Amino acid sequence: MYDAQPAHKFTFGLWTVGNVGRDPFGEPVRKPLSPPEIVHLLAEVGAWGVNFHDNDLIPIDATPSERDSIIKAFRGALAETGLVVPMATTNLFSHPAFKDGAFTSNDPAVRAYALQKTMAAMDLGAEFGATTYVFWGGREGSESDAAKNPLEGLKWFREALNFLCEYSLAQGYNYRFALEAKPNEPRGDIFLPTTGAMLGFIETLDHSAMVGVNPEVAHETMAGLNFAHAVAQALDAGKLFHIDLNDQASGRYDQDFRFAAHNYKQNFFLVKLLEDVGYDGPRHFDAHAYRSEDLQGVKDFARGCIRSYLILAEKARRFNADAEIQGLLAELKTVEPAVAALAGSYSPERVAALKAHEFDRTGLGARGLGYEKLDQLTFELLMGVR
Amino acid sequence: MYDAQPAHKFTFGLWTVGNVGRDPFGEPVRKPLSPPEIVHLLAEVGAWGVNFHDNDLIPIDATPSERDSIIKAFRGALAETGLVVPMATTNLFSHPAFKDGAFTSNDPAVRAYALQKTMAAMDLGAEFGATTYVFWGGREGSESDAAKNPLEGLKWFREALNFLCEYSLAQGYNYRFALEAKPNEPRGDIFLPTTGAMLGFIETLDHSAMVGVNPEVAHETMAGLNFAHAVAQALDAGKLFHIDLNDQASGRYDQDFRFAAHNYKQNFFLVKLLEDVGYDGPRHFDAHAYRSEDLQGVKDFARGCIRSYLILAEKARRFNADAEIQGLLAELKTVEPAVAALAGSYSPERVAALKAHEFDRTGLGARGLGYEKLDQLTFELLMGVR
Amino acid sequence: MYDAQPAHKFTFGLWTVGNVGRDPFGEPVRKPLSPPEIVHLLAEVGAWGVNFHDNDLIPIDATPSERDSIIKAFRGALAETGLVVPMATTNLFSHPAFKDGAFTSNDPAVRAYALQKTMAAMDLGAEFGATTYVFWGGREGSESDAAKNPLEGLKWFREALNFLCEYSLAQGYNYRFALEAKPNEPRGDIFLPTTGAMLGFIETLDHSAMVGVNPEVAHETMAGLNFAHAVAQALDAGKLFHIDLNDQASGRYDQDFRFAAHNYKQNFFLVKLLEDVGYDGPRHFDAHAYRSEDLQGVKDFARGCIRSYLILAEKARRFNADAEIQGLLAELKTVEPAVAALAGSYSPERVAALKAHEFDRTGLGARGLGYEKLDQLTFELLMGVR
Amino acid sequence: MYDAQPAHKFTFGLWTVGNVGRDPFGEPVRKPLSPPEIVHLLAEVGAWGVNFHDNDLIPIDATPSERDSIIKAFRGALAETGLVVPMATTNLFSHPAFKDGAFTSNDPAVRAYALQKTMAAMDLGAEFGATTYVFWGGREGSESDAAKNPLEGLKWFREALNFLCEYSLAQGYNYRFALEAKPNEPRGDIFLPTTGAMLGFIETLDHSAMVGVNPEVAHETMAGLNFAHAVAQALDAGKLFHIDLNDQASGRYDQDFRFAAHNYKQNFFLVKLLEDVGYDGPRHFDAHAYRSEDLQGVKDFARGCIRSYLILAEKARRFNADAEIQGLLAELKTVEPAVAALAGSYSPERVAALKAHEFDRTGLGARGLGYEKLDQLTFELLMGVR
Repeated sequence: MYDAQPAHKFTFGLWTVGNVGRDPFGEPVRKPLSPPEIVHLLAEVGAWGVNFHDNDLIPIDATPSERDSIIKAFRGALAETGLVVPMATTNLFSHPAFKDGAFTSNDPAVRAYALQKTMAAMDLGAEFGATTYVFWGGREGSESDAAKNPLEGLKWFREALNFLCEYSLAQGYNYRFALEAKPNEPRGDIFLPTTGAMLGFIETLDHSAMVGVNPEVAHETMAGLNFAHAVAQALDAGKLFHIDLNDQASGRYDQDFRFAAHNYKQNFFLVKLLEDVGYDGPRHFDAHAYRSEDLQGVKDFARGCIRSYLILAEKARRFNADAEIQGLLAELKTVEPAVAALAGSYSPERVAALKAHEFDRTGLGARGLGYEKLDQLTFELLMGVR
Repeated sequence: MYDAQPAHKFTFGLWTVGNVGRDPFGEPVRKPLSPPEIVHLLAEVGAWGVNFHDNDLIPIDATPSERDSIIKAFRGALAETGLVVPMATTNLFSHPAFKDGAFTSNDPAVRAYALQKTMAAMDLGAEFGATTYVFWGGREGSESDAAKNPLEGLKWFREALNFLCEYSLAQGYNYRFALEAKPNEPRGDIFLPTTGAMLGFIETLDHSAMVGVNPEVAHETMAGLNFAHAVAQALDAGKLFHIDLNDQASGRYDQDFRFAAHNYKQNFFLVKLLEDVGYDGPRHFDAHAYRSEDLQGVKDFARGCIRSYLILAEKARRFNADAEIQGLLAELKTVEPAVAALAGSYSPERVAALKAHEFDRTGLGARGLGYEKLDQLTFELLMGVR
Repeated sequence: MYDAQPAHKFTFGLWTVGNVGRDPFGEPVRKPLSPPEIVHLLAEVGAWGVNFHDNDLIPIDATPSERDSIIKAFRGALAETGLVVPMATTNLFSHPAFKDGAFTSNDPAVRAYALQKTMAAMDLGAEFGATTYVFWGGREGSESDAAKNPLEGLKWFREALNFLCEYSLAQGYNYRFALEAKPNEPRGDIFLPTTGAMLGFIETLDHSAMVGVNPEVAHETMAGLNFAHAVAQALDAGKLFHIDLNDQASGRYDQDFRFAAHNYKQNFFLVKLLEDVGYDGPRHFDAHAYRSEDLQGVKDFARGCIRSYLILAEKARRFNADAEIQGLLAELKTVEPAVAALAGSYSPERVAALKAHEFDRTGLGARGLGYEKLDQLTFELLMGVR
Repeated sequence: MYDAQPAHKFTFGLWTVGNVGRDPFGEPVRKPLSPPEIVHLLAEVGAWGVNFHDNDLIPIDATPSERDSIIKAFRGALAETGLVVPMATTNLFSHPAFKDGAFTSNDPAVRAYALQKTMAAMDLGAEFGATTYVFWGGREGSESDAAKNPLEGLKWFREALNFLCEYSLAQGYNYRFALEAKPNEPRGDIFLPTTGAMLGFIETLDHSAMVGVNPEVAHETMAGLNFAHAVAQALDAGKLFHIDLNDQASGRYDQDFRFAAHNYKQNFFLVKLLEDVGYDGPRHFDAHAYRSEDLQGVKDFARGCIRSYLILAEKARRFNADAEIQGLLAELKTVEPAVAALAGSYSPERVAALKAHEFDRTGLGARGLGYEKLDQLTFELLMGVR
């Protein structure tokens, strides 16, 4: 029941199970794995695909021949395992050149270099069949508003995306772009800090139809926002092009915990939402193992991500099939016919009817809605005691 | 130098200086003021305009004749003082009928009643010449995701706004709608929790051109987000229709402190942004005095809001005129001609040139940007020691 | 299995199930219940005891004869139901007199009045057999550090507690005092904002042995702190005199949700800690029903608090009995004899041995600790799928 | 006026100006500086002293002869510049051996190794005359409460400190220990997360008199707590043995910004508190330059820390000398003689007098306290416009 199926499209980035466990206060605890080793590890734990930043696969200073042999080895591992590469992205944050941003750097040379690097990374992704291209602008922000004008930042970011949309179309790559928001870290404040902000920004782009979002559990949660609500807004706008699953405590450093490691309830409602709408994009785990883990622990971590998703998906099916829960939900929407007749889109007649209707506001306020019961039943269903 | 001018369009809501100082743990500390008393108080402290929710002016259970006499008295006070009413809004949160939301309530009767109440409130605002109509959906959310489907919530909210846009057009009110986001309180999670989310949502509306945002310092700050960046995004999208000025500590209950009472630096950059772009809408203070204050303290509070804005505006002028600061900023954007030539919108030639250019990424990374100095100069300028 | 037993000592405050659902933006949604009605309601849902603030029972302006008849009726309800009153406390926050604090008010008259009111409330609690006296200083803080000197605040608070300890001893009340921390709300910053801060402060009191803490889930969680760790520190210091159970999202207004409504995992570890150490004080629910609820919903809420605790307690027993989990935990502590011999308290010989030992730090760093597996097994145990 | 004096005891750690600008998403942007280079840099910017972790000075894998030559060079730099070493500490967080904690690791071998390493580091600090020894237990915590028992963690931490107190006394080092709290990062939750928690914990130690705290602006601020209040509690308890000055936004990753870079107002009240009480310990800056900076920027950063402190100290003098501000503060404490007579420590007579006094609670509640004015005057004083 809890085994991954291809239809789930479970994916991991090279950087996730490949994470060596370095943090701001500590040195690596695990040895680096080569891309082919990662592909085999992912196949072993049941993944369907693997994603990468350009420099996860090809070091920034690789020679052309090094590049060729890396690509060959990686392609071999994909062939051996059957894994696909649905998504690619650019590392525009590790190198010191990007210390003040890439597309929004004050320095025109950095902005130009970021374009060059992204085009090359798009070429690389396309070479492996990626159809989603993610933009996470980790350095696109500031620590001091004295140093960077946010209006310029937005303008430069838009110019870059417009340019790269054109590039994608011209090359025939047919990418869909997915913008990933994050409120802070590694910058004091990152521009367009929430999925909602990205959705607003997309509408200012030349090719907005090819651009959507890649919401991440941890990023929205860092700002204390309800992640399922952010995903719902993306779905409502037809813009959920990709998703990053992991976990996180609110108001803290970026933790990238194993999916559902922290917020059981919230992640249940996330999974329920994705399953209920029949989301059919990749379910990408952008997380890494605790620093306490060795290679075996990394596998435990990856298996746990998948298994927890499937456990919560099964819980969602039970929630939908639970007669008491569904009965309570149905009751909430009951309404007398005279009121039902008031609903609908604008018309002068409807305005007149609405204005004429006498609402019993005291009665509406007195009605008990049963949310304590609903929420308690949810707890008990999730705990497996109902 | 620090006296309010009409061009600043400083406004307050009836509910701000009229706040009686009740909170979740304490009873009122001040006597209610009548709307005419508030208008005279605002005139005394230098305000240009006054805004209201329907029930700030007309109690929800007022009889028609009570309504008439209240309106007459209020109109009299406006005439005596010259204050204008640039904005109006609906109270869709105080009455128990709205305990589970207004436009997004699960109960169709509540949704219909919310439409009825808002049309009446729009009529009232128009009667006083208001041209901005604010929507703050304080109850549009949930404590438990078991109880409300966020996709339905968004759909219902959109239907209501589409309806009301039509109503405004049909009545010839010519309102511009301004949507105000808040992450939480009084609901566990409020839908469309950030200004960015509102900007995204607006694009899904039938009459998106007449809908913009009303960002509030406290609301964005509650989620730990950079408020000036949110305002910049609204400006970038041409959607800054109104603004709520106050102050707040991050990650806490809604404090609605006097403008610039808490985050001196962040509010400096906000004022600088508004002044630099020549924002000419109302500068609305949505704040209230501490519970420690009597009527005199309420006036101190209101005068403080205005005075702090003007002090920061003067600091912004100095920042723009400071040769050392401006020199550092200019230096950041210097670039060699060969790189400058790479900029511009998409063309195959530009792609070729970009791909051919050899960037010195090590050099770009090594360049010192002088942001510590810039930020320190900002501190010293704000402290008045430079 | 999930029925309350007297040994659990489940208690509620009069103000919890009696909460009428008023919040900063909305009017009451439920009718007030009289103290006897609340006692009967609590008996119906399975509570063992009931707690109160002085003014929950006796309105601040009650006449002596009103007081007498209220007490008589309350005593009658206790007798009819068998409920006990294990804890009492003072309302030093609702009346405007306390708008700037009670024991830490700048006004000596307010400080004196707070002492008077607390002595009377202690008399009242003792009359009903309360043995724990809680101090929650909700107004003891400030919005602006310009207005109040924190050193004076701490001094005044200490003086008040020293005075009241003497009073309790002199009256032969034999109360244990339990100090309850909260970081903010209704004040911008409340003094001694965490359970840890209270533990530190207690050591500066004249009668520190009779003073302990009353940690509350919501209060520690508001500041994003791990509540079970705070409770562990109180236990470690022998100071867990009482506990307030409820739930809360981090970085928000005080929510006082039904116990375990939000943080399933964290509350599991809290219950496990209390059960593992054999905590035998009251398990007090300081929470209230959502505003969506009527009287039936209030009962659902109260039953849910109790039931969720018992469900989690049963999960804790399973965790302790799970061979795989316990095996992993035991393995973590294995050590070679040469290292085991180094442990123990200070001695020159131990220093010499420690200095002489050659540690294999690389080996220690390479050891996989299996925490991903442990944490995943915890998830699966809690979900009821193992 | 803003030049450092020896009496200010401004110090920096080797790791602060020596920070190379690596973060979780980016590579170093600056070249490492040798300890002597750092000492000379600090002398140039006006520092009085320099602090270190053992491995800031001596790499963990240095040979004895490398150690000797490093020490000689460092001692030479100190002699050339006159800088002193007032504080030392142990790096118990960088090496993978400490990935699950040092004194609180589940692994007895790690706990023993941590003791060994700390004793050696104490020897090193003493060699340079350090009199304060700081303990920051950055890894003493957990991501999952399944993996570590907080009661054991506290016990093990206490055992280690008791051992090391004995060691210090036996060696005649005469160190004062200063415990530094942090809520999270690099661990999900760090034990004893606040200064208050440390103050409580200290009282459980065998040699509590020699142990105090080292509060850090950023750490308390991460949890959204008022730092000046935490420092006040430490002062109140006679435990402010050291202080770490920097800056930080609430609810985020550890930023370690230049002192007063972010929270102007809060840091003003911190400086005012330290100056008002005549704090005479080191004023230690535990911060680092933005990643945008080169070596010149690092000097700007260090000079900014010092200069901002001195600017705020001068503002504090003005606040204390401002007749209007002091008049408002004095007025707050006025009281009629009959009430003044009620103050004082416990006595039966005082109880009787308090119980007999009739307080005018309505009058107390109605009194305006003038805090809006006080806070506004503070803003204007800080802005240099008064």
